[in-house]
Amino acid sequence: MKDTTHWMYGVMLMIAMTCLSPLGAFADEGMWLFNDPPKQLLKDRYHFTAGDDWYLRLQRASVRFNSGGSGSFVSADGLVMTNHHVGADCLQKLSTKDRDLLEDGFHAKTLAEEIRCVDLELNVLQSIEDVTARINAAVTPAMTPAEANQARRAVMNTVEKESLDATGLRSDVVTLYHGGLYHLYRFKKYTDVRLVFAPEKGIAFFGGDPDNFEFPRYDLDICFFRVYENDKPAKIEHYLAWSAKGAGDGELIFVSGHPGRTDRLDTMAHIRFLRDKTFPNAMQKLFRREVILTAYSGESRESARRAQDDLSGVQNSRKARLGMLAGLQDPEIMGRKQAEEQRLREAAQENASRLREPIGDPWSDVAAAVKVWDGIYYDWDLLENGAAFNSKLFGIARTLVRLADESAVPNARRLREYRESNLESLKFELFSEAPIYDDLEMVTLADSLSMLVEMKGVEDPLVQKVLAGKSPREQAARLIAGTKLKSVEARKTLGQADPDTIRKSEDAMIQLAVLVDGPAREFRKTYEEQVQEPLRQAYAKLANARFAMYGTTVYPDATFTLRLAFGQVKGYEDEGEQVPPWTTLAGLYERAEEQGNQFPFELPPRWLTRKGRLNLDTPFNFVSTADIIGGNSGSPMVNRNGEIVGIIFDGNIHSLVLDFIYTEEQARAVSVHTAAILEALRKVYNADRIVKELAPGGSTKRSPGKS
Amino acid sequence: MKDTTHWMYGVMLMIAMTCLSPLGAFADEGMWLFNDPPKQLLKDRYHFTAGDDWYLRLQRASVRFNSGGSGSFVSADGLVMTNHHVGADCLQKLSTKDRDLLEDGFHAKTLAEEIRCVDLELNVLQSIEDVTARINAAVTPAMTPAEANQARRAVMNTVEKESLDATGLRSDVVTLYHGGLYHLYRFKKYTDVRLVFAPEKGIAFFGGDPDNFEFPRYDLDICFFRVYENDKPAKIEHYLAWSAKGAGDGELIFVSGHPGRTDRLDTMAHIRFLRDKTFPNAMQKLFRREVILTAYSGESRESARRAQDDLSGVQNSRKARLGMLAGLQDPEIMGRKQAEEQRLREAAQENASRLREPIGDPWSDVAAAVKVWDGIYYDWDLLENGAAFNSKLFGIARTLVRLADESAVPNARRLREYRESNLESLKFELFSEAPIYDDLEMVTLADSLSMLVEMKGVEDPLVQKVLAGKSPREQAARLIAGTKLKSVEARKTLGQADPDTIRKSEDAMIQLAVLVDGPAREFRKTYEEQVQEPLRQAYAKLANARFAMYGTTVYPDATFTLRLAFGQVKGYEDEGEQVPPWTTLAGLYERAEEQGNQFPFELPPRWLTRKGRLNLDTPFNFVSTADIIGGNSGSPMVNRNGEIVGIIFDGNIHSLVLDFIYTEEQARAVSVHTAAILEALRKVYNADRIVKELAPGGSTKRSPGKS
Repeated sequence: MKDTTHWMYGVMLMIAMTCLSPLGAFADEGMWLFNDPPKQLLKDRYHFTAGDDWYLRLQRASVRFNSGGSGSFVSADGLVMTNHHVGADCLQKLSTKDRDLLEDGFHAKTLAEEIRCVDLELNVLQSIEDVTARINAAVTPAMTPAEANQARRAVMNTVEKESLDATGLRSDVVTLYHGGLYHLYRFKKYTDVRLVFAPEKGIAFFGGDPDNFEFPRYDLDICFFRVYENDKPAKIEHYLAWSAKGAGDGELIFVSGHPGRTDRLDTMAHIRFLRDKTFPNAMQKLFRREVILTAYSGESRESARRAQDDLSGVQNSRKARLGMLAGLQDPEIMGRKQAEEQRLREAAQENASRLREPIGDPWSDVAAAVKVWDGIYYDWDLLENGAAFNSKLFGIARTLVRLADESAVPNARRLREYRESNLESLKFELFSEAPIYDDLEMVTLADSLSMLVEMKGVEDPLVQKVLAGKSPREQAARLIAGTKLKSVEARKTLGQADPDTIRKSEDAMIQLAVLVDGPAREFRKTYEEQVQEPLRQAYAKLANARFAMYGTTVYPDATFTLRLAFGQVKGYEDEGEQVPPWTTLAGLYERAEEQGNQFPFELPPRWLTRKGRLNLDTPFNFVSTADIIGGNSGSPMVNRNGEIVGIIFDGNIHSLVLDFIYTEEQARAVSVHTAAILEALRKVYNADRIVKELAPGGSTKRSPGKS
Repeated sequence: MKDTTHWMYGVMLMIAMTCLSPLGAFADEGMWLFNDPPKQLLKDRYHFTAGDDWYLRLQRASVRFNSGGSGSFVSADGLVMTNHHVGADCLQKLSTKDRDLLEDGFHAKTLAEEIRCVDLELNVLQSIEDVTARINAAVTPAMTPAEANQARRAVMNTVEKESLDATGLRSDVVTLYHGGLYHLYRFKKYTDVRLVFAPEKGIAFFGGDPDNFEFPRYDLDICFFRVYENDKPAKIEHYLAWSAKGAGDGELIFVSGHPGRTDRLDTMAHIRFLRDKTFPNAMQKLFRREVILTAYSGESRESARRAQDDLSGVQNSRKARLGMLAGLQDPEIMGRKQAEEQRLREAAQENASRLREPIGDPWSDVAAAVKVWDGIYYDWDLLENGAAFNSKLFGIARTLVRLADESAVPNARRLREYRESNLESLKFELFSEAPIYDDLEMVTLADSLSMLVEMKGVEDPLVQKVLAGKSPREQAARLIAGTKLKSVEARKTLGQADPDTIRKSEDAMIQLAVLVDGPAREFRKTYEEQVQEPLRQAYAKLANARFAMYGTTVYPDATFTLRLAFGQVKGYEDEGEQVPPWTTLAGLYERAEEQGNQFPFELPPRWLTRKGRLNLDTPFNFVSTADIIGGNSGSPMVNRNGEIVGIIFDGNIHSLVLDFIYTEEQARAVSVHTAAILEALRKVYNADRIVKELAPGGSTKRSPGKS
């Protein structure tokens, strides 16, 4: 039965929709910019007001993991908390045949025992500056798309370089609203990041793939790192105080993190393209990679260890994308998107006078650009995105070849990732000591070369050059045997080569990268000039139309930059049953029992032997209405006081459509509760050093009650 | 280093090739017809001669499993031996949540304990009659392909019906050489088949997917059934005596079984179509099905049990087809096929005078037919092959709808599978009590409907009708909830319906089958008239050309009918190392140990506790040069005396290209040795009843030595 509150929202929604609602920005929707938080909305809806310092503390306590994910500072001494599955990349790279940190966990009992990650870069957002006017000024209406693209790239590369030189901070121009706004983000960068604590994968990812994106849930999906400066723990001014009590039912909570990508502002033509082309293509690749990696993993325990992080990533993407595709194939959801677009079209027509300039028909412009994209899609994906060369060594070779070529042209004209301001981060990754396994390379490269043949055909001239008269398997073996790029020293030498020198390299993988670079660049050029630039221009018009009509009540699509979401801790109804907002530690043991304590429901030994110590009523995982998506993993969740009450690690199955549309009925973010984290650190792991570091100033009283 | 014997073969091959060799029928190549065995070849090569009774005994002791596989009679009381993975279909269907025969094995200690399979039909070939002239006489040169197709179908359906009426035997007209010959095969049929013994899956499929198609190998891939007549064990005249010593190194062996399908006589245009279209399409379906079934299996032990046979089948196909596709993508193998075709073209031209009629250009005819096939391929596969409706319930619905429609037309005009002579077998399967699981149906049907949408697009009119405004998941749920076809009674009622009545059915799955039947039949019609019939005519010309030039030294491609292969027990060289021809029981324990006794290398408990009893030097699995392919699984391997010395269960990874081309260098058939079977039955399973039944007249002396 609907309760009064629900009904009230229904009425409010109807009113909102009839009088120029934005694109459905109702309820707890929104991935808001930190320089434009939804203060009025929070005041109206939750009677929440806070000063700029509240937002600034949260912003600067938030951490971006460049490997893909979010985190937060939780102590003055640089302690960072994130998810186990965000830290997994580092854990995998630090592991060896005899030391499997990903599977077995890690616990540095002293500062000296903390281990440095091989290539982990953390970014902390310091400031945001609107540079829209300067970027747009560089592009004039008379320019062709190719010229416009070149001009835009030039001014962006230049702005970033100037900012880097002036501040010493990592400086990225971020494209918002698909081209509606350009903001300059300046980040403090940490590259000496050390592993402090990780639980066993068996508890961090308890339930594995079957329970992934499901709720109820029982995962201790956490991991601690520490940032260092000058070989000492960095001193952190803005960090989050720990709430031992954690979040309560119905409580207002905030999430600060880095949602990776959403497509909510896409036109219907664009979304149909995702549904009909990019998602099915992505699924086909994911299906085959999952099978190939699973088969490889079955060969021995060591091969399972080598592939485990890649395989987990593929499985996670597969489950997420299947859910997203199911949403796109759902006529009801597509009907809502269609109605949204229709409302915007009509509103734009009715309110034409309020627009600074005529909007034209950006929907058709998007459709035209998407059509070009459609025509080059497979080639662009195979060659430029490298889907045909699924190999870490190929990735390195490609980067080395382009680094040589791009370094030889002025900064303003370089491909974006080779701009001056990005080179330090790029080389940090390129020269990483992360292990590379020949046998795993062989499996993934042979399979992707076979896919290239299947998609392009044996007769294709480039395919013939790539294979050089060999079968995909033979050629993969030849390429891997014929490259020295596993050696970081070899990479560093080639990293200083000029274009001529690198072309004379006898390294087989470099030769392949050189061979495909011309065609790949051609597809990229077509994409940038005939797809990306027209899309930016069309979406800028749509964004301006929305600004004119809805003001600032529209937030931009996610871009893996810092955003603020909010919501309530709140259960939901599923197939006629009420799902409570949280699980407890007791539920963990019940779930393991019910599944015979078998993988992936097998508890690590210490969780079995120390069960008696635990308060089994401790809340473990919980759900909230906060608007999140992939990339938000590891995001801190704070209460009104700015104290950390949980850490986001997943969304439920109903949340997967959030890529396209926000729904509040059943979609939920899933977090680990701070009470369970403390309970586990204290009683299962005896991690007193970390507990002390978290708890000293932390509030132990319950944060202000329900709103 | 090449030995003299190898070199000798090389010389022989060169001679053979220069003087009108068939398509590479050298060495131990060939899947020969029992009515035309390669007697001269066996005499020349192995000094082997045997009377017709030798061949007849082997023929009638050979058993075809209609679920897909081979077997043999090994006692006078109807005992049949096959592979565990051939028996798996029956084991799965007899299993329940609380009794997992597939995983845990089964052992009937008495006759009374033997369990009847729910829908297993075994066929035993009694006689072969050449009906080529009669079939071809029905087709005149003046006929259009559509008329020819209809005429051919009519005469085949009629010939079969006449034979059934006259003999009471199952009668199938088998198309050989893709249309070069038509033989009438008469089978004795057994439908009361009972399970006698199956080992645990852990030993039957030890090494699982990682070791599948690999050698060295350690699998007890066997299973025993018994055929009954009138509720008593059937009396069997022709059965194979058991050789306790089994096969020896270098020994001549024969394999009698049912290879499913090869494509060795295909033209290059046809093979390129397989490489570029059918294999990639099959791989995409297999990849997604494997992922979907694996994910479903992870949900609980019961779901893993429900899906295990389907999943094993998919994994097996995936690994086999990846190997086959790798062969097709190998320029060296394609070069050999191309050279073969060139030789046949030139020979046909040079020997035009020896041909009864001008050969014309059948290669172009094949290419033209394949082009038509290419144009309808995806639609035909989705709708007529049912790839879009991956559901057991849909299969039943489709069969019921067509049974009603086809029963209303004369036998001569019916679709082949609904011909009078086949109805008994068809209904035996249609009215099977095999369990159907709603949740598993949901997973496979929703995924295949989603694939339909991905491939045909949302806007496709038929897709819109199929989905009826729902998402694939919703519609799958609606269809499964809205059908009563899980009930065999419901099926039997509908099995007697006329076309009008079945169209008025309110059963949701029947309605779907009716909805897609029109379009599906259209694609089938195009396929049969514009692809299949032209291919038959073109391949008949090629076959006649080969007969004229090579005589009977060419065997037909495999057709899941009984064939005789031969060869030697023989190791091979792989990556510079000599692989011995067999493994031992000792090797099994070493392999388990080396893999930490973890799934899929985990030995069943009794194999651990009873290790001490075993003679660990007993040969376990072994390889031979016999020419086999999928469908040969479970084939008996006999020595010169016709005694059974092993049972085929797999080919090594190098054998996967045998679909297209025979290679003897590394390709090997893999068998279980009879000595290991006896050792295991006696000492691990205490299966004295079976041992006694196998051994009484069985030779214990070594069969005649090397040839």
